[in-house]
Amino acid sequence: MAKIQLGPKPFLLPQPAVLVGTVVDGVPNFMLAAWCGVANQTPPMVTVAVRPNRHTQRGIEANRAFSLNIPSTNLAVKADYCGIVSGKKADKSSVFTLREGTVAGAPLIEECPLILECRLVQTLELPTHNLHLGEVVEVHADTDCLVDGVPEMGKVDPLVYSITDGQYWKIGGPVATAFQVGKQLEP
Amino acid sequence: MAKIQLGPKPFLLPQPAVLVGTVVDGVPNFMLAAWCGVANQTPPMVTVAVRPNRHTQRGIEANRAFSLNIPSTNLAVKADYCGIVSGKKADKSSVFTLREGTVAGAPLIEECPLILECRLVQTLELPTHNLHLGEVVEVHADTDCLVDGVPEMGKVDPLVYSITDGQYWKIGGPVATAFQVGKQLEP
Repeated sequence: MAKIQLGPKPFLLPQPAVLVGTVVDGVPNFMLAAWCGVANQTPPMVTVAVRPNRHTQRGIEANRAFSLNIPSTNLAVKADYCGIVSGKKADKSSVFTLREGTVAGAPLIEECPLILECRLVQTLELPTHNLHLGEVVEVHADTDCLVDGVPEMGKVDPLVYSITDGQYWKIGGPVATAFQVGKQLEP
Repeated sequence: MAKIQLGPKPFLLPQPAVLVGTVVDGVPNFMLAAWCGVANQTPPMVTVAVRPNRHTQRGIEANRAFSLNIPSTNLAVKADYCGIVSGKKADKSSVFTLREGTVAGAPLIEECPLILECRLVQTLELPTHNLHLGEVVEVHADTDCLVDGVPEMGKVDPLVYSITDGQYWKIGGPVATAFQVGKQLEP
């Protein structure tokens, strides 16, 4: 296959589009972020990268907590709005219906089918972003997204971000069962 | 909406399924991983979480380098095989066609449409996983996946992992343009 070198780019595909929930000066705030990932299994930990000058940074610092709210594709407009407009300029606390959680300073979005409540463990100060490591202390899921007791990807219908083409995408169908389909190649 | 609390789980959706390329004792090795994310913009940095007892851990430590090879869905069987079988037990160097890269110790997979070559910056030793922070020093992309000079999600057709239901999924269609569709909500 013909390949081209594109230089140093953060071109990981796909990325989840999540709404990072914080409370800044008493006001719940949500910022869209795609630069997040799982970091540890037990206890479960996730990372999210936030520019130091973001409104969200203040909330994470002040409360040492944040939520990751996973929107379905039908929330694309509201989610994108939360990526365009800073909490410094607009009160985003009424964009969504708020839900009570278990961690202070980590507001939850009722409309999101899957939500991770996180306590801040550590922050790595990288050249342009703060990489926040959070311990997931609770997960909230819509009951109508559950299959065999866990949220099923197709029912969650998560908003997916593509950093290369700058589009939101949706999930298509299932391809195969993980840790199963590859067994046919075992010697 | 009725919600249920599922306890502390690393239920971030969706996650990319990437093949982490290393060289261990002179043998190129690939491990499937979904616990990765973008950490910094300039220079571009990514994280990948690896259990300390993994064969891949030895390669990352020895060479302070790794590659993240993004497979298309048509590579699901081979990718899953690399998630099932350890390099301690099987030589996985001939599962794919190897491609020459720019970083020693970070082998590239010719069949993957998108590849990130990384130099190790730092490792965070978390309770069950090592979180490796890598600087992306080069990106390789198939020319037939490019639209306007960048890899397009639909053409890359990345293998997507769902940690909740344990399935691989594919990307469906585009939903909206990021940093654009939300403007309609601006006051």
